[in-house]
Amino acid sequence: MLDTVRTVADLRARVAAWKAAGERVAMVPTMGALHEGHLSLVRLGKAHADRVVASIFVNPTQFAPHEDFDAYPRAEARDAGLLKDAGCDLLYAPTAAEMYPEGFATSVSVTGVSEPLDGQARPHHFGGVATVVSKLLIQCDPDIAIFGEKDYQQLLVIKRLARDLDLPVEIIGGPTARDHDGLALSSRNAYLSAEERKIASALPATLKGVIEALAAGQPVAEAEEGAIAQLHTAGFNKVDYLEVRDGETLARLGPGPAAPGARVFVAAWLGKTRLIDNMAV
Amino acid sequence: MLDTVRTVADLRARVAAWKAAGERVAMVPTMGALHEGHLSLVRLGKAHADRVVASIFVNPTQFAPHEDFDAYPRAEARDAGLLKDAGCDLLYAPTAAEMYPEGFATSVSVTGVSEPLDGQARPHHFGGVATVVSKLLIQCDPDIAIFGEKDYQQLLVIKRLARDLDLPVEIIGGPTARDHDGLALSSRNAYLSAEERKIASALPATLKGVIEALAAGQPVAEAEEGAIAQLHTAGFNKVDYLEVRDGETLARLGPGPAAPGARVFVAAWLGKTRLIDNMAV
Repeated sequence: MLDTVRTVADLRARVAAWKAAGERVAMVPTMGALHEGHLSLVRLGKAHADRVVASIFVNPTQFAPHEDFDAYPRAEARDAGLLKDAGCDLLYAPTAAEMYPEGFATSVSVTGVSEPLDGQARPHHFGGVATVVSKLLIQCDPDIAIFGEKDYQQLLVIKRLARDLDLPVEIIGGPTARDHDGLALSSRNAYLSAEERKIASALPATLKGVIEALAAGQPVAEAEEGAIAQLHTAGFNKVDYLEVRDGETLARLGPGPAAPGARVFVAAWLGKTRLIDNMAV
Repeated sequence: MLDTVRTVADLRARVAAWKAAGERVAMVPTMGALHEGHLSLVRLGKAHADRVVASIFVNPTQFAPHEDFDAYPRAEARDAGLLKDAGCDLLYAPTAAEMYPEGFATSVSVTGVSEPLDGQARPHHFGGVATVVSKLLIQCDPDIAIFGEKDYQQLLVIKRLARDLDLPVEIIGGPTARDHDGLALSSRNAYLSAEERKIASALPATLKGVIEALAAGQPVAEAEEGAIAQLHTAGFNKVDYLEVRDGETLARLGPGPAAPGARVFVAAWLGKTRLIDNMAV
């Protein structure tokens, strides 16, 4: 059984004991429903530190009322087994009451990198993320914390808040884990029907197509437009965005050839399931 | 000479060394221009902890463009001498560039207790306070932090954010230090002309009058109205607010007799100087 704590006090006691013994601590915050992507972050943590704490908390404040908070998959016992096998030392699985006590009234927000892309498509999302991640990092006080590049914009938001709030932690991005056909692993892939799952492989293929088109000198705006049309043809019913942006600032690129450091970002819908992905250009 | 550090790294090294030696650390954040009120907080810190760190940072983000950021008194050498005499162990005096590095984009905000009173009169004030105090507490990581009850609403905002962000610090309020005639000590009292300084004593006298009137059974609304009239008669040119509110939630009280735990709050102007004060009913 993986050691599990559910309160800030218990978490702090465990981490403080490790630190007092001179051990480095990595944290891997998750919303559970773990897959190989999460587990690769745990292994990355283990490569950088002596101890890895994973957290599982499906954070209500980063879902809008019409989004999938209730439906979001939860399977703690299975998750705990996977984490233990991946080398995780401690699971922190707080209750909503532990995270948001009565009278809770504080929020952390980040301007700039949180504004385009998912910041436009999901207006309350990054406020919820910034607040809960600030809390998790302050609660655990790890030396390093690891977040997947699959949620690349989230990674940039978290790097910014950790720097700005002087949190004594190094934020590290872990590469996106992909299925055999290139689809980025995501807990939300479980929502897909068999037919939708086949169509979904067009998402990474389209991003690769954009990268090749840009390498061949196609202007950014043309490559974006062509890719959006491809996704609709493949069977995606809505594309929230498919945009090439600067990989650090998320600034929009000009319509001409892509600049160095660019990254292509996509969010698109298959039925009621929203999938996101991104790749370095 | 009082030991002085100007970077987060130097501050952390000093505090970590004390903690490693088993010493308890108190922090007293200030904007400098110190008076007996600040020094009483340092002594209170010394009574609760082995070491006291005072910070001096005139935080630009809690002043609106038309407010007195540029004019706010600054006297670090004099302040450092006073702090040393009061038993302070370390002065942390960061630059604005250290506090707000390039690309700074994060803010901490508190709803509820930050909204009435100064939250209405100075709409950007508590956002700036909440962000900079979060940063100072994360930078220093003290066991306790001490704030004056003179800025009572600020004390409530800071207690709330420390609780909500799980900062591992106990927030303690220090009693308001007063001059011989009862005027609350404030760095802004230095702005007053000799004549204004005489008039200013009407501020605490009026609050005492409210408390006596409430004790005698006068309804809250009547006591408030009478007190505002008294301040105008005494020579105050504007009263931002004079209100009796709950001392924990800052909820407005009914118009009838004051409830237990009530507190009376005032902000009023003498010429271009804004003075605030508050007392327990």
